[in-house]
Amino acid sequence: MNNDFSDEEKSGLYKAIFSRRDVRSHFTSKPIDEKILSQILHAAHHAPSVGFSQPWNFILIKDYEIRKKIKESFETEKMHSSKLVEEPRRTKYLSFKLEGILDSPLNICVTYDPSKFGPFVIGRSSIPETGLYSVCCAVQNLWLAARSEGVGVGWVSILSNNILKNLLELPEHVVPVAYLCLGYVSEFATKPDLESSGWLSRLKLQDVVYYEKWNQKENSSWNTIKELIKTNLDYA
Amino acid sequence: MNNDFSDEEKSGLYKAIFSRRDVRSHFTSKPIDEKILSQILHAAHHAPSVGFSQPWNFILIKDYEIRKKIKESFETEKMHSSKLVEEPRRTKYLSFKLEGILDSPLNICVTYDPSKFGPFVIGRSSIPETGLYSVCCAVQNLWLAARSEGVGVGWVSILSNNILKNLLELPEHVVPVAYLCLGYVSEFATKPDLESSGWLSRLKLQDVVYYEKWNQKENSSWNTIKELIKTNLDYA
Repeated sequence: MNNDFSDEEKSGLYKAIFSRRDVRSHFTSKPIDEKILSQILHAAHHAPSVGFSQPWNFILIKDYEIRKKIKESFETEKMHSSKLVEEPRRTKYLSFKLEGILDSPLNICVTYDPSKFGPFVIGRSSIPETGLYSVCCAVQNLWLAARSEGVGVGWVSILSNNILKNLLELPEHVVPVAYLCLGYVSEFATKPDLESSGWLSRLKLQDVVYYEKWNQKENSSWNTIKELIKTNLDYA
Repeated sequence: MNNDFSDEEKSGLYKAIFSRRDVRSHFTSKPIDEKILSQILHAAHHAPSVGFSQPWNFILIKDYEIRKKIKESFETEKMHSSKLVEEPRRTKYLSFKLEGILDSPLNICVTYDPSKFGPFVIGRSSIPETGLYSVCCAVQNLWLAARSEGVGVGWVSILSNNILKNLLELPEHVVPVAYLCLGYVSEFATKPDLESSGWLSRLKLQDVVYYEKWNQKENSSWNTIKELIKTNLDYA
């Protein structure tokens, strides 16, 4: 098959991938254009799913009272987790802005429902977690589509899932996978916040690639790719 | 912020999202251009990760003996799982081609290493699964980048993770998240195989979206989006 993507189409995809950010600040209050929101949700819904089970749901949340309670859960969990880190990193951790629950005009909870099309789902018997994994692929589609539309997305994981399940009235068997904050932004940062602040560095690609088995960095059949992945990308 | 994506850039991203397929057939034996492979891996490595922990590794596998043993594990697991489904669906299930382990020129195992940058990872204390979720986002980036380069990707989840861990010599604490088969293809199917074969249908977007809480399909503040998501997309 000849390649069916033009250079500009390809670069659009890579631009979304490399300029996507976890957004916690710079949200504007402008509501998201509903046609664009619909497009972003379609993108999420077209993620791969194990056995074509499409096990996701998207709960759109604007209600201020619900979001306020979720924000409270964030504050409680952030305080708990700060006890797990020693000074001077604790003070630094506590100073980070890590969510935009009330600053963003829209929150979305993406959930996993294992009962959908079940109990037998092709490809889910040996590794049941693949159902959850499908939902994460949907989140990534949503995130990239939003980026291309100028909409920032932040994933808040400092939360009590029990409180979330209660507030959103999720059935017992449904798992909240991602709690997302969405909105137009005044800017997208050029680097992840935790990189800019010096908390952690981006690993080199060569540090995360192995050949044929775990931890194998040398293998004569892989010399070309080994050299190539040392090169930084223009986009990256 | 003005939107910084051109229409063609956006359509490149959506094209990748809507035309991506789980590929099990139509692989050609042509090796993947190594510059393109490097680009695809960079895309995966630029996924979001909880606390910027970048907890993924990519094990590139060409070795025939390893792949043959993984294929054997697939056969065993497929036979086991077929006992979970009743006739006439069992016969149909057994007739499906569900992997391209030996047909594709490259396999990649994407793993999760919770110890990376740990034990304290920002955002992972309340919901530890978010580490795994990050790895899934990397898989989706890889999948989309591959699609734009004419490279098909199939995710094989009918496998024993224990056998996989043994064969690839993964340490006890490392989790194999995705086992992927990659290669150029003679064509990308227009629909998922499990949809074309009538196994399952694609849900409508309106069936997976709720408003403010689980199962709520009616809410007066959401009338516009409710109408919009009933419309099918040109791309989809």
